[in-house]
Amino acid sequence: MQLDPRIRTLVRQIEESLRSLFSGRNPSALYEPMAYILDAGGKRIRPLLLALSCRSMGGGLDCSLDAAVAVELLHTFTLVHDDIMDHDGLRRGKPTVHKKWDESTAILAGDGLVTAAYDSLLKTRHPDLIRILQIFTQSLMVLCEGQALDKTFESRDNVTADEYFDMIGKKTARLIETSCEIGGILGGGTEEEIASLARFGSELGLAFQIQDDLLDVVSSEEIIGKPVGSDISERKKTILSIHFLGRADVSQRARFETFWGKKNLTAGDAEEMGALFERTGTFEEVRKVIGLRTEGALASLDSIRPSQAREDLRELALALLNREF
Amino acid sequence: MQLDPRIRTLVRQIEESLRSLFSGRNPSALYEPMAYILDAGGKRIRPLLLALSCRSMGGGLDCSLDAAVAVELLHTFTLVHDDIMDHDGLRRGKPTVHKKWDESTAILAGDGLVTAAYDSLLKTRHPDLIRILQIFTQSLMVLCEGQALDKTFESRDNVTADEYFDMIGKKTARLIETSCEIGGILGGGTEEEIASLARFGSELGLAFQIQDDLLDVVSSEEIIGKPVGSDISERKKTILSIHFLGRADVSQRARFETFWGKKNLTAGDAEEMGALFERTGTFEEVRKVIGLRTEGALASLDSIRPSQAREDLRELALALLNREF
Repeated sequence: MQLDPRIRTLVRQIEESLRSLFSGRNPSALYEPMAYILDAGGKRIRPLLLALSCRSMGGGLDCSLDAAVAVELLHTFTLVHDDIMDHDGLRRGKPTVHKKWDESTAILAGDGLVTAAYDSLLKTRHPDLIRILQIFTQSLMVLCEGQALDKTFESRDNVTADEYFDMIGKKTARLIETSCEIGGILGGGTEEEIASLARFGSELGLAFQIQDDLLDVVSSEEIIGKPVGSDISERKKTILSIHFLGRADVSQRARFETFWGKKNLTAGDAEEMGALFERTGTFEEVRKVIGLRTEGALASLDSIRPSQAREDLRELALALLNREF
Repeated sequence: MQLDPRIRTLVRQIEESLRSLFSGRNPSALYEPMAYILDAGGKRIRPLLLALSCRSMGGGLDCSLDAAVAVELLHTFTLVHDDIMDHDGLRRGKPTVHKKWDESTAILAGDGLVTAAYDSLLKTRHPDLIRILQIFTQSLMVLCEGQALDKTFESRDNVTADEYFDMIGKKTARLIETSCEIGGILGGGTEEEIASLARFGSELGLAFQIQDDLLDVVSSEEIIGKPVGSDISERKKTILSIHFLGRADVSQRARFETFWGKKNLTAGDAEEMGALFERTGTFEEVRKVIGLRTEGALASLDSIRPSQAREDLRELALALLNREF
């Protein structure tokens, strides 16, 4: 992902704060897996959005850093627990916590991460901290709801596009929305601006997740750090499979069924799936949805005061949606 | 457990608040298991201690109920996740969440419960709410540390009594301490009184856990709702096994080894273990420690202002330590 040096500096500052959190703390059975997964990288989108949203309202990094760290910790917590539930063995090209250690360790590391998230957020000094904590907690509950929906979709064949959007709204977009909203509050934005930042985050979050679903098919293992087509291997309902099944003819559908749930899809399989998605107009439709959500996100930015940070938010959004991983 | 009608009324009020939390909420895949485990009963010690501590400082139930619910939710969260890690199939005589549903459901239900705990605590209206949230969060992190220690003890043979006390201090006593401390703050106690209430909770928590370890051997399945000797079946280091191994002769130790890790201990096995613990003076020693901790707890109560609620705290402490389950 190509980013402006100003944004890259911010990423480094966030990374430094994350790195110092758990290293050398005891008992290592708890803190080492927490440090491991935090250190495994990631795009740090949520803390970046929080810090930039704060900056766009005139707040400095000193006001937003603890909250930025908190949203990244919360996100990381969901990754650790979701990977157990989804039996995923790789995350960002490294073994997942429950693979490197075991499930108990991963459950506990996740619990430690959510606790550390609150701990970091509680370091924030702001008169509206209770409100921020409430938003954060609501967001976490909605995240759990989204994960529950995602799990129930696994045993259902008739998931609709609306249900899918509801699920990713909860599982992915909400925390991105919350990151922008909290940044706006910390920076001292007006209620209108805070709402615009939240809407920016919400739309961006949807576009981001749909892009993620798309990359699962069109990217490569070296780039995304996990096998291509893993959603299809794991029978995960995504916008791609939902749109495809709504458009495919009998023979296309039959061909798709041979890949659905198949472990270790080959490069050839991925290519054939890609061709199926292409021919049915699935890719086109999905790219259109990403475009619409992106436009919605960028339009929301227009209603906040102009600033360098606002342009950085715009750049970050575009970089995310043009990314290859 | 025999309790005064005044305390029983308080239990009912807490139960009512708990019951209304999740019933009928969607998605049921998340909320139904949460409601199930909350509904499975339990002694509600932590919320009782919180509400009584608040009352002892002159605060009403309206000030403390949301926080009381929060500590029970937090405790319940630890039960759900610990049961997965310990592979326990029964809790309070009912199937554990991961047995009744599956591990993913239980992980998520636990995550939902910790979130709901914060949600409830955040409803509390008090000028020191940030301080309360910090105490609560620290307590949760210490709880995770205690669970991590407990898990590492499973693969170690040389756990000392000091290490055991450190572990139960973190895993059990700390949240009981926190419950009393938060109650004291909400009730408007002086800093000295809040510290005394915290010390009361901490000592009581240790006595309570040691009593729990003892009951695992001397009680019956009908009463404790899980098989007798389950700690020994699961090779859990407790004060009993640590004291026993420090006192037993070679043949007693050899006999004990035949039970250590044995699944499905019979009533006869439990009886023989009891005789071994009796003959080595283990029971006597453990009962002495419980007595000392109880005295410490009750002495702390003497330093807070006299009130009916203080006497209720005393009665509750004694009832807990004379309980059969």
